[in-house]
Order: sequence, then structure tokens, then C-alpha cells
Amino acid sequence: MTVPALDLGGTKFAAAAVSADGELLARAELLLEPAVLAERTLLDVIEAITRVVPVKTVEETLPERAVRLAGDAQCMALGEWWRGGSGTARAMLGLVVSTGVGGGIVLDGLPYTGPTGNAGHIGHLAADPGGPLCPYGATGCVEIYASGPNMAAWARDQGWDGPDAKHLTANAAAGDVIATRAFERAARALAIGILSSAVLLDLDHVVIGGGVAAAGPTLFGPLGRAVRENAGFSFPRRLRAEPTRLGRDAGLLGAAALVLNPPRSTP
Amino acid sequence: MTVPALDLGGTKFAAAAVSADGELLARAELLLEPAVLAERTLLDVIEAITRVVPVKTVEETLPERAVRLAGDAQCMALGEWWRGGSGTARAMLGLVVSTGVGGGIVLDGLPYTGPTGNAGHIGHLAADPGGPLCPYGATGCVEIYASGPNMAAWARDQGWDGPDAKHLTANAAAGDVIATRAFERAARALAIGILSSAVLLDLDHVVIGGGVAAAGPTLFGPLGRAVRENAGFSFPRRLRAEPTRLGRDAGLLGAAALVLNPPRSTP
Repeated sequence: MTVPALDLGGTKFAAAAVSADGELLARAELLLEPAVLAERTLLDVIEAITRVVPVKTVEETLPERAVRLAGDAQCMALGEWWRGGSGTARAMLGLVVSTGVGGGIVLDGLPYTGPTGNAGHIGHLAADPGGPLCPYGATGCVEIYASGPNMAAWARDQGWDGPDAKHLTANAAAGDVIATRAFERAARALAIGILSSAVLLDLDHVVIGGGVAAAGPTLFGPLGRAVRENAGFSFPRRLRAEPTRLGRDAGLLGAAALVLNPPRSTP
Repeated sequence: MTVPALDLGGTKFAAAAVSADGELLARAELLLEPAVLAERTLLDVIEAITRVVPVKTVEETLPERAVRLAGDAQCMALGEWWRGGSGTARAMLGLVVSTGVGGGIVLDGLPYTGPTGNAGHIGHLAADPGGPLCPYGATGCVEIYASGPNMAAWARDQGWDGPDAKHLTANAAAGDVIATRAFERAARALAIGILSSAVLLDLDHVVIGGGVAAAGPTLFGPLGRAVRENAGFSFPRRLRAEPTRLGRDAGLLGAAALVLNPPRSTP
């Protein structure tokens, strides 16, 4: 059985054909201009599917036309659990730190998406209730500190003059003081969000992907320190927080897993 | 089938016989002196069981001698889901606000206790990372603000001269300024912990019990305001946060439910 998996983002579509054992057989990507996104969405979806799986095959492989939807970070977490080496985790959180900060939860090998499908929104946990206002009306959310655009905006307020988070990452890696401070500030907010999640869910694994996480040691260095500094309990201290192994494929593999329901290993 | 349910606390034991449909058939309570707790525990457990269910019956009703253990707040949450009118909740959090602040999670009618059994520890979520140090080495935990002894200790630091949280509650209800402020401060920390949990788990119901929650409107008034003030998103705003309906029986009924596995309503 082959399953088509789609990743519908704000600026791109990705589509893949995924086999029942989690091999990514074909992959296509379309860049989109956000202005034309709404009207083109359906056509693009159909085009993206037919690039990787012929339409006749789609109908054969999906006899009941089962379609499953989930958030990008929810799919990323499930993909990492299935094919990224997190399969022994019984309670895992996947984070996508990028234009926003999203999250997905996998409990005993099953995606936990919640009654309204919104579970895992770690970007909107309070990292500091005395912090800046977020666009949704709460204060000091993780995302206000740790999303790429918010990190760059904060750095510019401090006098940094780069254009975006990609440049901020390069500057931080080269030792720029403000850029380094922006990463430390983001890392602290992420650590508090991760630790609150760990305490609540008794997490045993955290995987982090997305554009900001691609900074590697520039993010994971301060993040590891912030987790250790803010972990009071012993049980969050044993937590493994690691970079994604599957990168951009994690979400597509997780989307396929929603339909394929891969078997869970017994503890 | 009748199941014996035990609640082993720091200063008391409670035991009950619970029928398969959740009736509490008999109930006994023993007060304990903490100093003698360790050596007397086993004898007391046996005595408490035999008061409510004859030993011969225990063996009959538990042919495989199934024993299930869970935290007090985990049992409280499950009891409220089963017999307290929270049965339509798909993602619920039960809080016990008392000498400490504990929590338990019920997802789709099943207790979620986590890989090490520690899930639901809402007392150790960060309410304010710049706040006071907690005994476990973290800072600004919910429990530092909202447990009964910590509320009373803070009030005494502000000049209040009462002995304990029970008196603090009475003083707050009577309009004492410091006591009222202690409840507002606790309510804000609880609200932040509840909202972080709501965002992460997509909660649709929160039930609160324990000695501090017995303060009624003195706690639930400022708590409701703090939840509304700190909720950025629409989905936590639809959250129902209510006082326990079962009171002291919730934990015993939940403990019985661990063994009885009551059927879940279909959504």
C-alpha cells in the first residue's frame, strides 16, 4: 500500500508517496505566492498528488477514501516517532521552531490531537506572564521569544541590523553579542515551555525541527543549558531533547502514519 | 462486583467499598500521626480494608488480585470524570489544591499517568520563571503560590498573623486585604498553570478540589477572572473550570475506577 502525504504550508506545498513501511518513494514541492494561495489551493493539491501518485492509484490505495488531517507539528512528531528513532518514547513532544512555534504530542505511539485538534500548541504556553503581549491577547508566550521573525524583531530593537532569522543565526554562530543573546532568550522560553510540558505529560523525549532549529549548536547549546537550569525535578532532567533526524520529511511521514497506523512497539 | 478503594494520605487513610456502577457502599477513615506512619502503614491498610470489605470478599472480588496504584489527584480526576458529571469531557484536568497542588489527566475516559506515573504534576509548572525558588530547585512553580501552607506563609510575610490556610480563607471571605491578595496571587498562578495545560492538552474541562478549593467563591471568583485575563486563545476561553462535585469521595471513586474500567461514552 502506498499513501499520498501532503504538507500544506503558507508558502509551499510538499507531497510524497509513502509506503506502508515508511519509505518515502517520491517527493514533490511547489512554492506558492501567499496572495494566490486561497484560490489555487485545491488545484495545487490535486496537481501535487498526481505528481507523486497517479490518480487511479490513489483511488485503489484509498478504497474508503480515508483522509486524515493534522497540524504540521503534530505530523512532524508522529513522523519522528515512526521513522526518526523516537519509537521507544512513550510520551514525546515534537516542536517546529520556525515562522511560529508549533508542537505535536505522541502518547504510546498514537498522535494526541485533542478534542478540537489543537493539542500541542506549545508556542502559546506562558514562558513569562510578565512578558510582552502576543497577538492573541496573552502575555509572554513561548512564540513571542522563540519564533524566527520574533527573534529577529527583538534583535533589531537591540540595535542589530540584519534582515531575518537566517542572518541572525549566522551572526550568532559568528559570536555577535545581540544575536547570541536573541538565541539565549529564545532558548530560555523554549526550555520553560518544554519543562512545563514535561512535568504535565511526563515526557521522555523531545524532538525539535524547523528553520530556527536548523541553527544546530547555536540553538541546542543554550537550550540544553536552559533546560538544566530550570529543571527542578529529577524526572524532567532525564529528558532527551534532540534535533530532528528526518528534517523536512518528518511531517510527510507523519501525515502518512495518520492513515497507515504503524504498529506500536510493546514496552 | 465490589472493589475496595484506599486513599493513603500523609495524615489519614480513607477506605471505601465501591460497586461496579460507582456507588460508594461503605466508607471508613483513620487519622494517623505522621511520625508512626511508616511502621504502621501495612497494618492500617489491612485494618482499613477489612472495615469495609471482609477479607474473604476481597479475595473473591479480586480473583487475580489486581491492584492498581495512582496519585491522589490522578484518582480524583478519574472519579470526577466517572461519577462527578464530567463524563462528556474528552480532555480533562483534575486539580487538588491543598497542602500541595496536584493534578490528574483523563483523556477520552482513560487516566493518563505517563511513562513514570508522574503525569499531571501541575503544581510544578512554571507560573512565573522570575518567581521564588521552590524546594525542588525550580522557580515560580504554581505550588509556591497556591498551596495552602505557601499562601499562609506569604500572607504572614505581608503582616497577616493567622495560623493557617483555613483561617486565611475565613479572613479573605471577610474582606481582609492581605488574605484577599493571597487568594488573588494563588488564583493567578493556578490560572496560568491551567491555561498552559489547556493549550497543551486542548482541555475541555477542569475540576478543582482540595482544602483550598473548599474556599468556594473566595478562590473561584479571582480564579475565573485570572483565567479570562490570561487566556489569549479562544479555545482555552471555552474551558469550564468548576469545583469538585464529589468532594472527598472523588479520589476513592477514581481509585475504584482504575480497577473497574468503567465504559466510556462515545462522543
